[in-house]
Amino acid sequence: MDFYSLCDAATHLKMYPVFDVIHYTMMCLNVKEDVQKSVPFPFSRQHPLALWFSSMLMCFASQIWLALLFNTPLAAVFNNPDSILIASAVWYVVNYTPADIAYKLLSFKLFKLIISCMKEVHRVYGIHAGVILAYKKYPSQYLLQVIAGILKGSSYVWMKPFERFVRGFWAPTSNEFLQPSFVLKGSTVISVLFVLRAAHIIHIEHTIVFSCSIAVLIYLRISMMLLGTRDPFLPFENLICSVIFGGMWDALRRARAEPVNGAITSEAKLKKS
Amino acid sequence: MDFYSLCDAATHLKMYPVFDVIHYTMMCLNVKEDVQKSVPFPFSRQHPLALWFSSMLMCFASQIWLALLFNTPLAAVFNNPDSILIASAVWYVVNYTPADIAYKLLSFKLFKLIISCMKEVHRVYGIHAGVILAYKKYPSQYLLQVIAGILKGSSYVWMKPFERFVRGFWAPTSNEFLQPSFVLKGSTVISVLFVLRAAHIIHIEHTIVFSCSIAVLIYLRISMMLLGTRDPFLPFENLICSVIFGGMWDALRRARAEPVNGAITSEAKLKKS
Amino acid sequence: MDFYSLCDAATHLKMYPVFDVIHYTMMCLNVKEDVQKSVPFPFSRQHPLALWFSSMLMCFASQIWLALLFNTPLAAVFNNPDSILIASAVWYVVNYTPADIAYKLLSFKLFKLIISCMKEVHRVYGIHAGVILAYKKYPSQYLLQVIAGILKGSSYVWMKPFERFVRGFWAPTSNEFLQPSFVLKGSTVISVLFVLRAAHIIHIEHTIVFSCSIAVLIYLRISMMLLGTRDPFLPFENLICSVIFGGMWDALRRARAEPVNGAITSEAKLKKS
Repeated sequence: MDFYSLCDAATHLKMYPVFDVIHYTMMCLNVKEDVQKSVPFPFSRQHPLALWFSSMLMCFASQIWLALLFNTPLAAVFNNPDSILIASAVWYVVNYTPADIAYKLLSFKLFKLIISCMKEVHRVYGIHAGVILAYKKYPSQYLLQVIAGILKGSSYVWMKPFERFVRGFWAPTSNEFLQPSFVLKGSTVISVLFVLRAAHIIHIEHTIVFSCSIAVLIYLRISMMLLGTRDPFLPFENLICSVIFGGMWDALRRARAEPVNGAITSEAKLKKS
Repeated sequence: MDFYSLCDAATHLKMYPVFDVIHYTMMCLNVKEDVQKSVPFPFSRQHPLALWFSSMLMCFASQIWLALLFNTPLAAVFNNPDSILIASAVWYVVNYTPADIAYKLLSFKLFKLIISCMKEVHRVYGIHAGVILAYKKYPSQYLLQVIAGILKGSSYVWMKPFERFVRGFWAPTSNEFLQPSFVLKGSTVISVLFVLRAAHIIHIEHTIVFSCSIAVLIYLRISMMLLGTRDPFLPFENLICSVIFGGMWDALRRARAEPVNGAITSEAKLKKS
Repeated sequence: MDFYSLCDAATHLKMYPVFDVIHYTMMCLNVKEDVQKSVPFPFSRQHPLALWFSSMLMCFASQIWLALLFNTPLAAVFNNPDSILIASAVWYVVNYTPADIAYKLLSFKLFKLIISCMKEVHRVYGIHAGVILAYKKYPSQYLLQVIAGILKGSSYVWMKPFERFVRGFWAPTSNEFLQPSFVLKGSTVISVLFVLRAAHIIHIEHTIVFSCSIAVLIYLRISMMLLGTRDPFLPFENLICSVIFGGMWDALRRARAEPVNGAITSEAKLKKS
């Protein structure tokens, strides 16, 4: 099997049973870990309904956001009872196995690594589906296509505040707009790439763009999990912030007001705080 | 008049003027009592607009939720200006009669009992309307039909957080998912019954299911109001929680960790806290 | 040019480039000033994404509310990429010019006066567009037409809580229902006038109603900004509150309970608190 046919294979995976289950598992784990941070142990024992609903919100976040964006009935989310059944089964296994054995298994580094990588594959497929959906409805609206891709790829990070609200945990001071996550930035870049390709602005074959996106996301995820590297977009972000969003001017002003060398340190302090 | 024709009569009541007014009255009372708990007296004098809007949100909660679920315009909720006029009149009478005479009348135990019972009739009609509406649009989606029935029957308990938000009272730590009310559980059971009947899974006549639902809800409501019995679903709930949602395993684990007899008491403590 | 042709000219202004830019400028200033109240300086440096999104929410609030009311896709808001580009440019200029020079210019009393007046013109056009839109869809629903007009004219005051939420600033105790602003009251009156005229209940020429609305709003705005007069609707509001919403009855009751002259003072205390 040569390189191209490997790429081609990567673009024709079936999401339905395996990758969807992986997605649901990641979402249920996400909720479970968020619960453990905020409330001690017995939450899952005392409020199964809230836990179930917030897990489902996370699992089906991308369908919900796209339904809102394109004004299709929310009812259609429930049109696929199989998905809800599977997601509920995953939720049950993650939260209620005796002695928490499923959760402990899933917490093994190796397992976590594998399902995280599979989730990245699922993400790229989601972004692609979102871009294509928007492209079919509004072929000339590039901005909208990018937004649809982002919403499919990072749907659950936007659902976080509402999911928490369901669990009675209201944290308005942290949201995705204030602290954009790696997931959001990655989805944005890939979404833009897909849109540029669909608009014939860049001329690379779909197979290549698609499989390279998967490869890069998996590579970044592995390096973040194993080597503990921080968000790889941060340097670019800091650069953009200081060039475009006033950082340079502030530094200049401070340089004039303060003695030499004070400018950079106070700028650094600002970024940290 | 024999028993069957009595049942038949109960399924052909007209909701429009009387039962709707009862519904609006209950909703306005609900808001008024919630206001009195959180803010002292002059709220209704200082913020009539907020009070009016939050009362309307409660009165038309079921229409709003179904419009969101089935993606019909919210504008259609205002399509029936008569309802809004009647609801506003009820709101005015409940909140602004001289010396609060209307409220004092409605607080009499007997009056409260009567309108509570009539509200239960209204509820069963609402659940039925919701199930039928979903059945017409999505005949094979049982889950969706159940959800539509629940949303019609217990719409206002879901609207509570938003209604409070309008009044400037934000209580994110309590919601229907965390503390499911009697109303929600009753609506769920009846909604499931209606859906099973519509799907020809149980073969009981519609008239019987419908009038028995009304009778049981009224009976439970009366016993809760007069005898002060607690939520009749609680025992089943506790049973399900301990069998399915990990209670048993926790008890086993604790039994091994603690001396004999400690298991049950600590389990009980957990439930209480 | 006589008076009538002046009025006529005022009803045929083109909104697209100039007035829209004024509108975006006002909205971005509104957000910027609200940020400065709640968080000190570096917010715009640290969270450009949140700032951008909340400014856009304010700029396109009227489109968003009408999309929700009439159930048109939210996606359509992004259908006009030119508007979003212009609004983003305005946002950038307001927030990130070197040494904050654009903001300092816009803060000059004279400049502020001019753009506020132009915003009032934009507002009346918006109200008219809202009423006409609702009239075309639901010709006999007066209440709905009034609501559409209000939502177009005062859209951003309703968006405030959500815009703040995006910026991580959650202030549930203040909203438009609790403290209706001048903008809301003015929009309501003008909206009602337009609806009455469209329904042929009052027989004044459209040109007159339209240009008089603009003139009155500008006059009130100037007098509020230059002379510091308070909300001109307040006296009517207090009158209505005391006649209809229980103020009179409370005063009577207090008059009987307290010694003479005590009634008015305690009533006044109530209003103040």
